[in-house]
Amino acid sequence: MDPVLAVDIGGTKLAAALVEPGGRVAVYDRVATPNPAAPDAGGLDAEGLWRTLDALLGKLVTDAGSPRLAGVGVGCGGPMTWPAAEVSPLNIPAWRNFPLRARLRARYPGLPVRIHNDAICVAVGEHWRGAGRGHDNVLGMVVSTGVGGGLVLGGRLINGASGNAGHIGHVVVDPGGPPCACGGRGCLEAVARGPGLVAWAREQGWRQGNPGRLEGTAAGAELAADARRGHPVASAAMRRAGRAIGIAIASATHLCDLDVAAIGGGLSQAGSLLFDPLEEAFRTHARMEFARRVRIVPAALGQTAGLVGAAALVFAQDRYWTGRAAG
Amino acid sequence: MDPVLAVDIGGTKLAAALVEPGGRVAVYDRVATPNPAAPDAGGLDAEGLWRTLDALLGKLVTDAGSPRLAGVGVGCGGPMTWPAAEVSPLNIPAWRNFPLRARLRARYPGLPVRIHNDAICVAVGEHWRGAGRGHDNVLGMVVSTGVGGGLVLGGRLINGASGNAGHIGHVVVDPGGPPCACGGRGCLEAVARGPGLVAWAREQGWRQGNPGRLEGTAAGAELAADARRGHPVASAAMRRAGRAIGIAIASATHLCDLDVAAIGGGLSQAGSLLFDPLEEAFRTHARMEFARRVRIVPAALGQTAGLVGAAALVFAQDRYWTGRAAG
Repeated sequence: MDPVLAVDIGGTKLAAALVEPGGRVAVYDRVATPNPAAPDAGGLDAEGLWRTLDALLGKLVTDAGSPRLAGVGVGCGGPMTWPAAEVSPLNIPAWRNFPLRARLRARYPGLPVRIHNDAICVAVGEHWRGAGRGHDNVLGMVVSTGVGGGLVLGGRLINGASGNAGHIGHVVVDPGGPPCACGGRGCLEAVARGPGLVAWAREQGWRQGNPGRLEGTAAGAELAADARRGHPVASAAMRRAGRAIGIAIASATHLCDLDVAAIGGGLSQAGSLLFDPLEEAFRTHARMEFARRVRIVPAALGQTAGLVGAAALVFAQDRYWTGRAAG
Repeated sequence: MDPVLAVDIGGTKLAAALVEPGGRVAVYDRVATPNPAAPDAGGLDAEGLWRTLDALLGKLVTDAGSPRLAGVGVGCGGPMTWPAAEVSPLNIPAWRNFPLRARLRARYPGLPVRIHNDAICVAVGEHWRGAGRGHDNVLGMVVSTGVGGGLVLGGRLINGASGNAGHIGHVVVDPGGPPCACGGRGCLEAVARGPGLVAWAREQGWRQGNPGRLEGTAAGAELAADARRGHPVASAAMRRAGRAIGIAIASATHLCDLDVAAIGGGLSQAGSLLFDPLEEAFRTHARMEFARRVRIVPAALGQTAGLVGAAALVFAQDRYWTGRAAG
């Protein structure tokens, strides 16, 4: 069977792959997402970014010998309209209401083109070929610069009213807690996102050992590394994140009766420093028998989960591209 | 088309009805649930309770002229195994692992017999013929002595791994909040259930005007009545419940992307005293566009919602009796 051209569009990089029906990533390439503020961006606009993406995809397919394709699957940062996929990724200011699905359909005529939120694609990948495989009720989470997710229930991806189901990052874990970028307060993301933890740790006196690094993910990685070395404030930051995630998963499984919660993203690499307090908070709040049965596990697919999930939107449409809205 | 024999089994009453395919309750009867502690209970055991139920159903069907039945649908207090429905209702100590589905199948041979949690049946009723009709993504809630619910997503009832999806009462709204009967802490139910509100109001100095009444629902009703009369502590109790419900719905819609949340049960009759602070807390925590779109409405069917939903398990099995587990 022909491969799917899978695409992962984020604020840091544009990645693409040919994914085989079994889920194997056969060919892979990526470029840094052009930054309109960078000196070499040349006044990057929506069309310039599209040309960069189009060139990446064209080269990937040509280098692979121009195989026939089964379709195009894309994970892209939100928000977007769904399933029409006019995209306005928070981290990609050049695209606002950019008609990504229409463009790809024109570029790849006759092929199914299916686009979903990037965190949903990660969750789908983990359900299809990763840590949730073989289970019907799975929450996939990405804990990184933000906190995203996707929800598979009864063996099928849950889209909700507008394709926005799975926003575990905005489950409320502390009603009087810190303000969230969404406008709310005390969301899981407000507490547990990498930059939020870094800010909290700085308030407590933690300092980055390598101030030359960029803010954001890198500082978060350094915080996790300091926690592994036993730094008390860094360790406390991981506990803070773990507890918040544990509370959110308790709420989610009471509502959705999950088999598995799979946690990926940079922060999940803190290992037991994150997972031990997470489990403890979960056990405190999830006491009924059905809720205690959930298995909380690290995601299995790593960086390619989103590409594998994007391919599954095409390969396994009966599970991941369903409902009235999907067209 | 033949009617469904619909049954609603709770700690206070056993109710039964013949429900027509359009959802109309054609014939209705009920008896008080025998209380094993009462002097006239005569050492009530599991079989005694079964005989009471069987007599209620037999008389209802006979009095209606013994029509042909399309099936038997039952809502019963949890917990239970599902879909096998060996039931152990918290409020009915006489039944522990009672094989309700097997008994009803033996009593009504050849008919489909479908049993689900009573709060799930209320949610199904509200989706099928009530406040959620015509919407694909609906949370139905019952706020009363406890807080229960059921979840319809993508037009189909969500069962989860073990038939326990929909437990909105155990979404965490205040991680350091009061202990919950489930063993957890800060669950919506721990804050907003009628007896919890009554206990809180008493701590604040509220006294029941009619001390001859029973504890529980009646005290909750009196608390709501006092709130309507402007009693400051009673009003504060309604605000406390409303805020907790608003936070829980915000979390639920971020996770599930709902169209409608329908709220029934005794407490919902407090009207704007409950719904105004509920909306305010919801607006504080649900700021993203998709989340703000949810409509929060009172349930429409009242006391018969559970019977109508139990009938829908038979009449509309493609939506409400689905998945691998349902047999």
